[in-house]
Amino acid sequence: MNDHSIIVAPATALGGAIATIRLSGEGSIACCDSIFRGRKPLADTASHTLHYGTICDDERVVDDVVVAVFRAPHSYTGEESVEISIHGSRYIASEVIRLLCKQGARLAEPGEFSRRALAAGRIDLSQAEAVADLIAAESRAAHAIAATQMRGSYSQMLDSLREELLDITSLLELELDFAEEDVEFADRVRLGSMLKQTESAVARLIDSFRVGNAIREGVAVAIVGRPNVGKSTLLNRLVGDDRAMVSEIAGTTRDTIEESVTIDDIRFRFIDTAGLHTTSDQLEQMGIERTERAMRQAQIVLYMTEPSQSDMTLPTLSEGQTMLVVVNKMDTTDRRDIEGAIYISARNGEGIDTLRKSLRLTIDTEGLYRGEVVVSNIRHAEALRRAHNDLAAALRALDEGLSGELLAEHIRGAITALAEITGRITSDDILHRIFSQFCIGK
Amino acid sequence: MNDHSIIVAPATALGGAIATIRLSGEGSIACCDSIFRGRKPLADTASHTLHYGTICDDERVVDDVVVAVFRAPHSYTGEESVEISIHGSRYIASEVIRLLCKQGARLAEPGEFSRRALAAGRIDLSQAEAVADLIAAESRAAHAIAATQMRGSYSQMLDSLREELLDITSLLELELDFAEEDVEFADRVRLGSMLKQTESAVARLIDSFRVGNAIREGVAVAIVGRPNVGKSTLLNRLVGDDRAMVSEIAGTTRDTIEESVTIDDIRFRFIDTAGLHTTSDQLEQMGIERTERAMRQAQIVLYMTEPSQSDMTLPTLSEGQTMLVVVNKMDTTDRRDIEGAIYISARNGEGIDTLRKSLRLTIDTEGLYRGEVVVSNIRHAEALRRAHNDLAAALRALDEGLSGELLAEHIRGAITALAEITGRITSDDILHRIFSQFCIGK
Repeated sequence: MNDHSIIVAPATALGGAIATIRLSGEGSIACCDSIFRGRKPLADTASHTLHYGTICDDERVVDDVVVAVFRAPHSYTGEESVEISIHGSRYIASEVIRLLCKQGARLAEPGEFSRRALAAGRIDLSQAEAVADLIAAESRAAHAIAATQMRGSYSQMLDSLREELLDITSLLELELDFAEEDVEFADRVRLGSMLKQTESAVARLIDSFRVGNAIREGVAVAIVGRPNVGKSTLLNRLVGDDRAMVSEIAGTTRDTIEESVTIDDIRFRFIDTAGLHTTSDQLEQMGIERTERAMRQAQIVLYMTEPSQSDMTLPTLSEGQTMLVVVNKMDTTDRRDIEGAIYISARNGEGIDTLRKSLRLTIDTEGLYRGEVVVSNIRHAEALRRAHNDLAAALRALDEGLSGELLAEHIRGAITALAEITGRITSDDILHRIFSQFCIGK
Repeated sequence: MNDHSIIVAPATALGGAIATIRLSGEGSIACCDSIFRGRKPLADTASHTLHYGTICDDERVVDDVVVAVFRAPHSYTGEESVEISIHGSRYIASEVIRLLCKQGARLAEPGEFSRRALAAGRIDLSQAEAVADLIAAESRAAHAIAATQMRGSYSQMLDSLREELLDITSLLELELDFAEEDVEFADRVRLGSMLKQTESAVARLIDSFRVGNAIREGVAVAIVGRPNVGKSTLLNRLVGDDRAMVSEIAGTTRDTIEESVTIDDIRFRFIDTAGLHTTSDQLEQMGIERTERAMRQAQIVLYMTEPSQSDMTLPTLSEGQTMLVVVNKMDTTDRRDIEGAIYISARNGEGIDTLRKSLRLTIDTEGLYRGEVVVSNIRHAEALRRAHNDLAAALRALDEGLSGELLAEHIRGAITALAEITGRITSDDILHRIFSQFCIGK
């Protein structure tokens, strides 16, 4: 049973000129009416209309408001809903919510409005997730990923992959029903090419996660290098303020400091790390461990050095990491003898634009802006990986001439994994498809 | 001439599930239509209706939105207005505003929407100021003051005082017109009692400013006392977290640290001060100067001592200040020999409730909740003081039998001062100063 009790929560952040309190569930309009005084009761108003009035606590007027009325099913949740625009004070917001709760509403849980939208079938699970991503999007690229996902083209793509797999299993299961007759409904060669195609599509989606995740979370850039090479100065230069503490004393930076900078359409998270050098100081040792962790998790390792530095031991990269070698302090010399390095002066800003461009070029967004689906959600990436394992196993089983039953089992695993992304739960589904499309009067 | 160009700004804070972009001015609806795609153009919709659709940058969909249409004069500003509810991302908000600006809107200045509401005669100046106060209100008492002022009963009161004075001046001016005939239209005794009555009303309003200002800004409580007496511990206890740095070393607190705590319906601002003792340390000396300044500006001086302290020199109070003597460290002794003191243990919480109650009792809100007008705005208080000076001068002139002309001049001064509060007489300068302190989007 779906819960349609009245839930209430602020839908906007507080602290602006106005704020909106959202109410959804059966009886929301009546609940609001019990504390609202306007020209007429909200009960007598049409959907999608706005009404000026006051919110009252008995005789005390709490605020002048504008109330928006949404009648079921024409609201975000699909339920009867009300949105109350109040003056954006925290006190008024808490008073209005308190009064509504006295009238039978309860405080909504996190995501509960979207969960109701999902339950009402107005959006699927991946779309619900996209709403959250869209709200968090801080760059054009992150917005593009979330918007594509929210608009449903991602779900459509997953659904069509899933349908292809369902077609294959129906054929295989039909075969099993007629097992005694030794009929082979499913042409193994065609089956193999269908499976291969789906497997490639899933593999492409998994591949897109590296870029998608970087765009969604911000591309992590670990700034590493010897003490005093100018890492904090560079971070300040990139961020444009004095967030990091800069000092002439070697080893000043003990904590990793993170700052976000948007370059063109992508957000980068720069992680200034403690100087990479050996030390007996325990605190500093902890800082160095943190550096190494930050470096392992980064997409880009920005190795910083200076012209006077004689030996240069580049850190070892993990798979998928990119290294940029940056030579700082070019305000003190003209030596440019490291091939492929980017020469800058963090102090006077020389070369910073080139560095920004090089950073931006590490992320390929051509496919994204052409409208290709890019996976950015780790839950989806994991489900896709499970689907891919199952598809690979199915292909191997096919190759080895194993039974249709085994094949079908692997494919069903992949179907379930894909269905988990959009929130369909499926075993019922497969049966339904078999009997509706292949009803042979059995 | 009034400016009716199209202005745009976020009306809510960003960072919530949704955010609202507000647009006002002639042509707002057409401006929004140029980037909105819905079932029908907004131009064809009625006032106070909501419309689902998308905001587009050419082919690119920026967001799914709900647009509220307000037709002139039925909006906050009195102008044609549109409110666009977007997903609450900073990126989307900036994109929507960028697109609207490309279509002819411009970014609103702070308070510009309210200034237009004022220009349209929808609210007066004191009401516009009350809107800003209402948004900032963090306690029930601050809300009550702002709400009363916004609802206009404050303006009505000032208007009726002003009208009484206008009646008096018309009588006096009539007298001047017939000066040769030596007629006295205005009965001097009745005049005197009318003036006295108005003067008392103005004096009462001025008096209310002490409480009103304390409620609006938060009641300033300076916590003073010797080093190590437990001032920071008390502040932490009151605030309930570890904001202040507590240490066993005397003189730890060098900055004044301020924390807000709401006790019942009133917000108190506690100011932890550097220890009151002489020192040669220059930094500490600066801290002590800050203590003395904080103490002068506080409404309440909370003098903190401990049972073992032999000599106790209480600080001198300014006019209107209240002192509470608090004896701390009652977990270490039972000695209670200071009359009227509040005995507490900041460490274990003993007596803290009594202290809270004593603090709350220093502010009398009986009149406020009975519906009496309480002045909380310093600009208003200053105008009232000027009006009061003029009325006092008029009463003296009457007493001394001075000419009706001189009398009328003083009264006209008072009328002007009162008119400045509601904005009937106001220079652009003053308006600019008032509205520039508003948040953008109001």
